[in-house]
Amino acid sequence: METSVLARLDHERGVRTGVPEVVFAAGKTLDENVALMRGLFERAGFALATRVPAEQRAALCEALPGAVLEPRSGAVRLGALPRTTTSIAVVCAGTSDLTVADEAAFTLEAFGHDALRVTDVGVAGIHRLYDAIEGIRACRVVIVVAGMEGALPSVVAGLVRAPVIGVPTSVGYGAALEGVTALLAMMTACAPGIGVVNIDNGFGAAALAHKIVTAK
Amino acid sequence: METSVLARLDHERGVRTGVPEVVFAAGKTLDENVALMRGLFERAGFALATRVPAEQRAALCEALPGAVLEPRSGAVRLGALPRTTTSIAVVCAGTSDLTVADEAAFTLEAFGHDALRVTDVGVAGIHRLYDAIEGIRACRVVIVVAGMEGALPSVVAGLVRAPVIGVPTSVGYGAALEGVTALLAMMTACAPGIGVVNIDNGFGAAALAHKIVTAK
Amino acid sequence: METSVLARLDHERGVRTGVPEVVFAAGKTLDENVALMRGLFERAGFALATRVPAEQRAALCEALPGAVLEPRSGAVRLGALPRTTTSIAVVCAGTSDLTVADEAAFTLEAFGHDALRVTDVGVAGIHRLYDAIEGIRACRVVIVVAGMEGALPSVVAGLVRAPVIGVPTSVGYGAALEGVTALLAMMTACAPGIGVVNIDNGFGAAALAHKIVTAK
Amino acid sequence: METSVLARLDHERGVRTGVPEVVFAAGKTLDENVALMRGLFERAGFALATRVPAEQRAALCEALPGAVLEPRSGAVRLGALPRTTTSIAVVCAGTSDLTVADEAAFTLEAFGHDALRVTDVGVAGIHRLYDAIEGIRACRVVIVVAGMEGALPSVVAGLVRAPVIGVPTSVGYGAALEGVTALLAMMTACAPGIGVVNIDNGFGAAALAHKIVTAK
Amino acid sequence: METSVLARLDHERGVRTGVPEVVFAAGKTLDENVALMRGLFERAGFALATRVPAEQRAALCEALPGAVLEPRSGAVRLGALPRTTTSIAVVCAGTSDLTVADEAAFTLEAFGHDALRVTDVGVAGIHRLYDAIEGIRACRVVIVVAGMEGALPSVVAGLVRAPVIGVPTSVGYGAALEGVTALLAMMTACAPGIGVVNIDNGFGAAALAHKIVTAK
Amino acid sequence: METSVLARLDHERGVRTGVPEVVFAAGKTLDENVALMRGLFERAGFALATRVPAEQRAALCEALPGAVLEPRSGAVRLGALPRTTTSIAVVCAGTSDLTVADEAAFTLEAFGHDALRVTDVGVAGIHRLYDAIEGIRACRVVIVVAGMEGALPSVVAGLVRAPVIGVPTSVGYGAALEGVTALLAMMTACAPGIGVVNIDNGFGAAALAHKIVTAK
Amino acid sequence: METSVLARLDHERGVRTGVPEVVFAAGKTLDENVALMRGLFERAGFALATRVPAEQRAALCEALPGAVLEPRSGAVRLGALPRTTTSIAVVCAGTSDLTVADEAAFTLEAFGHDALRVTDVGVAGIHRLYDAIEGIRACRVVIVVAGMEGALPSVVAGLVRAPVIGVPTSVGYGAALEGVTALLAMMTACAPGIGVVNIDNGFGAAALAHKIVTAK
Amino acid sequence: METSVLARLDHERGVRTGVPEVVFAAGKTLDENVALMRGLFERAGFALATRVPAEQRAALCEALPGAVLEPRSGAVRLGALPRTTTSIAVVCAGTSDLTVADEAAFTLEAFGHDALRVTDVGVAGIHRLYDAIEGIRACRVVIVVAGMEGALPSVVAGLVRAPVIGVPTSVGYGAALEGVTALLAMMTACAPGIGVVNIDNGFGAAALAHKIVTAK
Repeated sequence: METSVLARLDHERGVRTGVPEVVFAAGKTLDENVALMRGLFERAGFALATRVPAEQRAALCEALPGAVLEPRSGAVRLGALPRTTTSIAVVCAGTSDLTVADEAAFTLEAFGHDALRVTDVGVAGIHRLYDAIEGIRACRVVIVVAGMEGALPSVVAGLVRAPVIGVPTSVGYGAALEGVTALLAMMTACAPGIGVVNIDNGFGAAALAHKIVTAK
Repeated sequence: METSVLARLDHERGVRTGVPEVVFAAGKTLDENVALMRGLFERAGFALATRVPAEQRAALCEALPGAVLEPRSGAVRLGALPRTTTSIAVVCAGTSDLTVADEAAFTLEAFGHDALRVTDVGVAGIHRLYDAIEGIRACRVVIVVAGMEGALPSVVAGLVRAPVIGVPTSVGYGAALEGVTALLAMMTACAPGIGVVNIDNGFGAAALAHKIVTAK
Repeated sequence: METSVLARLDHERGVRTGVPEVVFAAGKTLDENVALMRGLFERAGFALATRVPAEQRAALCEALPGAVLEPRSGAVRLGALPRTTTSIAVVCAGTSDLTVADEAAFTLEAFGHDALRVTDVGVAGIHRLYDAIEGIRACRVVIVVAGMEGALPSVVAGLVRAPVIGVPTSVGYGAALEGVTALLAMMTACAPGIGVVNIDNGFGAAALAHKIVTAK
Repeated sequence: METSVLARLDHERGVRTGVPEVVFAAGKTLDENVALMRGLFERAGFALATRVPAEQRAALCEALPGAVLEPRSGAVRLGALPRTTTSIAVVCAGTSDLTVADEAAFTLEAFGHDALRVTDVGVAGIHRLYDAIEGIRACRVVIVVAGMEGALPSVVAGLVRAPVIGVPTSVGYGAALEGVTALLAMMTACAPGIGVVNIDNGFGAAALAHKIVTAK
Repeated sequence: METSVLARLDHERGVRTGVPEVVFAAGKTLDENVALMRGLFERAGFALATRVPAEQRAALCEALPGAVLEPRSGAVRLGALPRTTTSIAVVCAGTSDLTVADEAAFTLEAFGHDALRVTDVGVAGIHRLYDAIEGIRACRVVIVVAGMEGALPSVVAGLVRAPVIGVPTSVGYGAALEGVTALLAMMTACAPGIGVVNIDNGFGAAALAHKIVTAK
Repeated sequence: METSVLARLDHERGVRTGVPEVVFAAGKTLDENVALMRGLFERAGFALATRVPAEQRAALCEALPGAVLEPRSGAVRLGALPRTTTSIAVVCAGTSDLTVADEAAFTLEAFGHDALRVTDVGVAGIHRLYDAIEGIRACRVVIVVAGMEGALPSVVAGLVRAPVIGVPTSVGYGAALEGVTALLAMMTACAPGIGVVNIDNGFGAAALAHKIVTAK
Repeated sequence: METSVLARLDHERGVRTGVPEVVFAAGKTLDENVALMRGLFERAGFALATRVPAEQRAALCEALPGAVLEPRSGAVRLGALPRTTTSIAVVCAGTSDLTVADEAAFTLEAFGHDALRVTDVGVAGIHRLYDAIEGIRACRVVIVVAGMEGALPSVVAGLVRAPVIGVPTSVGYGAALEGVTALLAMMTACAPGIGVVNIDNGFGAAALAHKIVTAK
Repeated sequence: METSVLARLDHERGVRTGVPEVVFAAGKTLDENVALMRGLFERAGFALATRVPAEQRAALCEALPGAVLEPRSGAVRLGALPRTTTSIAVVCAGTSDLTVADEAAFTLEAFGHDALRVTDVGVAGIHRLYDAIEGIRACRVVIVVAGMEGALPSVVAGLVRAPVIGVPTSVGYGAALEGVTALLAMMTACAPGIGVVNIDNGFGAAALAHKIVTAK
């Protein structure tokens, strides 16, 4: 049997799609992740891994001089894309959603953008959102991260002109169904102009925001 | 085979539970519904039917002198329980939810209470809720009817002291899953103090509100 | 990247909604939970945390002099709201439901109410419920906790005038679907006047009961 | 292409399994149903069809002299199996379940048994069950038909020595999920000794009861 | 707060329903299980526990002299009900279903009946069932345990006169959905006369068989 | 707005994949279906449409001289692919599955193969399958069509050397979940060597069989 | 009871969110739809309704001089927003998806943008996508409409720099689950940079695209 | 109680179905797996086990001289079936799918066939598939392994004449639903000629391919 080949990197992906290939580190060994990060960095001067397992983080950073770690979600980057002057908001409903929000914000900054963080403005205390709304309105795209009933994107999309990206999270229990309820709720939001990404996919939200602000 | 017996009315139910027995008219014939309404009214001086099929409504009202029809949901009542001084809010997110909201409000009024109607205050235009919030705050119980993402009960429960009863509706399409998404979302709402009833169950919400204000 | 901000406490929530903000301790570190409890207590003279992880309980209580622990569910309180003269029943179907029932009862008592406990009165031995029914009828609200087929709220709601709050639990296996079956069953109960909260959400049931007895 | 063959009757099935082959008439044409009934009757002196479409019932009975129609469910029989002295209870929770309960009772009587009908004893008015319990206890098997939350089999199985057959029905709306909720609830009932058949399958419940009382 | 009461045993259950109360040991402590078993045995001269956690089994048996352990499923009994002359078949589709089949057979024998074991006769090698069919046909009830596609009860019910009890198991992966596929398949089996119990519920199947053979 | 273009036919598909493009007629107008059939036939001397709506069938055949109609499923063909000497079995569990089985058999014959029809050999009367097994064993591929519990493919795959294609059907009610139960059951069948196609997809099964017998 | 109020129009929505309020016409009467369109047009010089029921379309257009109808989806507009120079692609997988794609394209043009239509480029004939890719790459946003397995957005997102909006459709049968399969598939697409909207929500996709190109 | 019998091997299965019986090692003890492998090998000169638990692999290979281990999936073989000249492709979408793809390829080679491995050709970089397509086209059957949105089988089936076997994998998170999304997507693929096997069932795909190439 022909030996299985390790992840063939698709180095032209950045050129073709505007989003560089990144390493999804969960389920890979430390050695695989180190090699993939090195390979990306050598070619492009930039490498990003998401969801590095907790027990690999220290060793991965040690093996990759200059690596920067996002400690909640376990994202790691080497270098960064050129800075832009674009601000993108990352709004989240509760403290429990910070892992996902941090992955999104870290990815945005690795891609060169400013991330405006607005935290703990869930719909059960909606006045807190109003305090922050002017800053959010100044952003080019708004990423809204929410678990449980996933209602925050609807409220935000009713208040801003920017496109809203909804990220359902697996926060909650019972009827939250590990994020499926929030996903379905965002899908059927009564405010138009919301694009939804997969449950807990902070990276995907950031990649979509990046395409929105850099395309054309 | 012993003949099947038609619905044996449980006339003591009102005494035992505080909610009089009512007729769920869908799926029954006109003759059955007329007979059941008459039976209830003769004993208790009050009768209520919900979900009378559209094609039976005129005939039912003709057969029952003094009957009052709620035209959207097809609820019909004969008489009413004694008037109270209690106000209960019936808040709904969109025009499409009016069938369910009207069933709830008509039932409340049949049970003797005032129903404060607040319509079309969905979360995508949340400022409209603020305009009405003082009136809602003056109510003893707040029924919130919402389909699609079902987010409105969370927002309301974060703004009022009264208990909130959430009624998911089957309004929406696709990911709304005929009301299941709204039901799950209300269940996992981040604001505490919400009790949820079945999809489209305006009567059930009114019955729960009635028990809340009349018990003890 | 702006540093993520820890849970901003919403200190006015108690005034606005009648339910004080509480700490959902699961998924937070011991230090976070200690700090949040202290912050709440210093402002309001009362603090409640639910679902403190088993391994943090001793340390949390040691760090917070005067803390009272509910040992099954891991709820912890500092102080209590003023005593009322209201009794609220907490009825449960089986021994396995005690974790949820204890969280509800502990929360009720922290909020100042008397909790009447009625345990192990499942529908498969319904006579045991009859023995206790008079005490239950004397309560202002009845919380009914049940897993598996979730039938007990229907039976209770057919016997009492008080509003019934149904709490489905994740007790059971196979077709119990981790509480979803009980949740759906309570939603479609044939007795009107039941408000349902999320699976295993004993705290939420108590918060709803508290709003019912204190509002207006 | 070889012509498709119409239902090949399995005439030895009665001998092999104790349950004669019957005609599931829904989805077949009138001519097919007449031919199948005649074929069964000519061989065995007995024929039973279930779910005859409403528009075929009169014509089918006219084409089959001596046919007996069960008007709610559309079951039709020609002849009957020899009378036994066995009584089997058919208990149902609500008027809406009568279609299924009538199919079960008609099948039992066609198979030679007495069907004790107990109707409208739902769990929300459980005292009505107590009035009938002695008669139910005198039966060899108890079929319990229930929709919505499907709680009645649990209660009955906790009160009688006979085996209980649960038949979930598609009665209800919203969270009833067309009978799936009742099915799951009966599956996870806290009382042991309940065998469950498919949603609305009154015939299947009767066939199982028949095997229980005639086997060996 | 009134102290939570441990499982109140329902000692009259055996008289009322024909199935003695048993201990569901999973989720209880060793001390609780020992106490419950002793309590049952002292009153009735018989006690049965199912699903004793692996780590409690040795200690439980040591604490209860005369205890008999079923090693796969962790059922334990003290004493047994009087022997009958009834044989009940326990048929299973694959080796992986033995945990559930053993629980069923052990329960049957504890209740006084003979259990005829037929193992590894899955539908993919249906000839093996034929070799065993005469023995199965001599039994009063047939319990059929099957996971994955859950097809075996249909095949067996087409071959025997005895009532068939289907027990879906959580054996399988992927589309087996932890037993839900087998449960649904058994529900919609094309052979009539099958009563289905919960996933992996070997005890429940035995309890139903016991009621079938002992009632009246 | 640029006018929407009607189905651009992919005429090289037959060369590229071995399966000619066919018309899925449901949801298209009569004119569209006539034009698409003519377009295919003019290029390739062969055209096949499946699921022609009942009300279009006569007109479509009239508009297309030489058209051959399969009356149950509404498939229509013009011409046929060259005859092969290959036999493919189409086995089905019940009369109700004939619509799907007929679509499969008609497609096979349109593609040039012999279809061996074996009907009404469901698992509840498994001896009927044995009567037909030698003919089935002589076929190069076996298509097995089954609804309800979907068990027949497992049994057949345990008896023959040919690859088995399982086609779940939407036959059944309640727990059959419109074919999803049969689909899941076939997926998790205990006999290896079964490839499953979509619910009611008789055409797809025939296309797969055609690729199996003609590839290379 | 206070009379229910008809849809209160939220005229500032366009200012606040960049997307003008539109009329969701399904489920409303002709009179309501006429009144709502007139109200919007009088204030803003522009009005759009989607999903006008087939039987209302002619009358609505007659009642609203200058109305333009999109015939497949039943969208109707009065006037249009100012023309931009932006092109947005609307790519769809099959003819059956045209209803949704046409709603999206019509909305885009009503909002002032050019819609580049690319039709019938499903993944089973992926070369057709390549023929059109250069035109797609010249667009600022790409809307991809696909039913069944919903794979097209992944393929497109791997080929273009523009952000991709995925619109799952309810096209398909059986395992397509009325669009839920396509929705889930788009959510978990392996290409980053896709935002997903509700099933069949062509309008929502256009609204999101409009926000992307006009915000800031 | 009669002792439970260990897996009775069905040694004639190879003769009857063309696929030898194999050992599904997960959930069995080391001793059971050694005994089963020895039993198979002594009779037939060939034995295959799949899913040997990681902690048993070394010991199993030591106990069975000549055993060959596939290290990712834990398949083990003793001997092999006679070599054929048939090539079968095993195509997979991503590195994460290699466990399943390796099980399929190892099984194919144990059954005597050549496995052409094509790895990391997911639909988000579809050009990589084109580079490999000629090799794939030269194969008699194509197995396509894909998780997440499961789109690759559609694309491949639109490009080759060989039958395609789709293997959904549990790779992905959130909306991937542990492989159910990929399973449903493959089922409803727009390219005909795909047979789907269970989630992660690499062995089953190889068994079906083996039957396709060896039957008749």
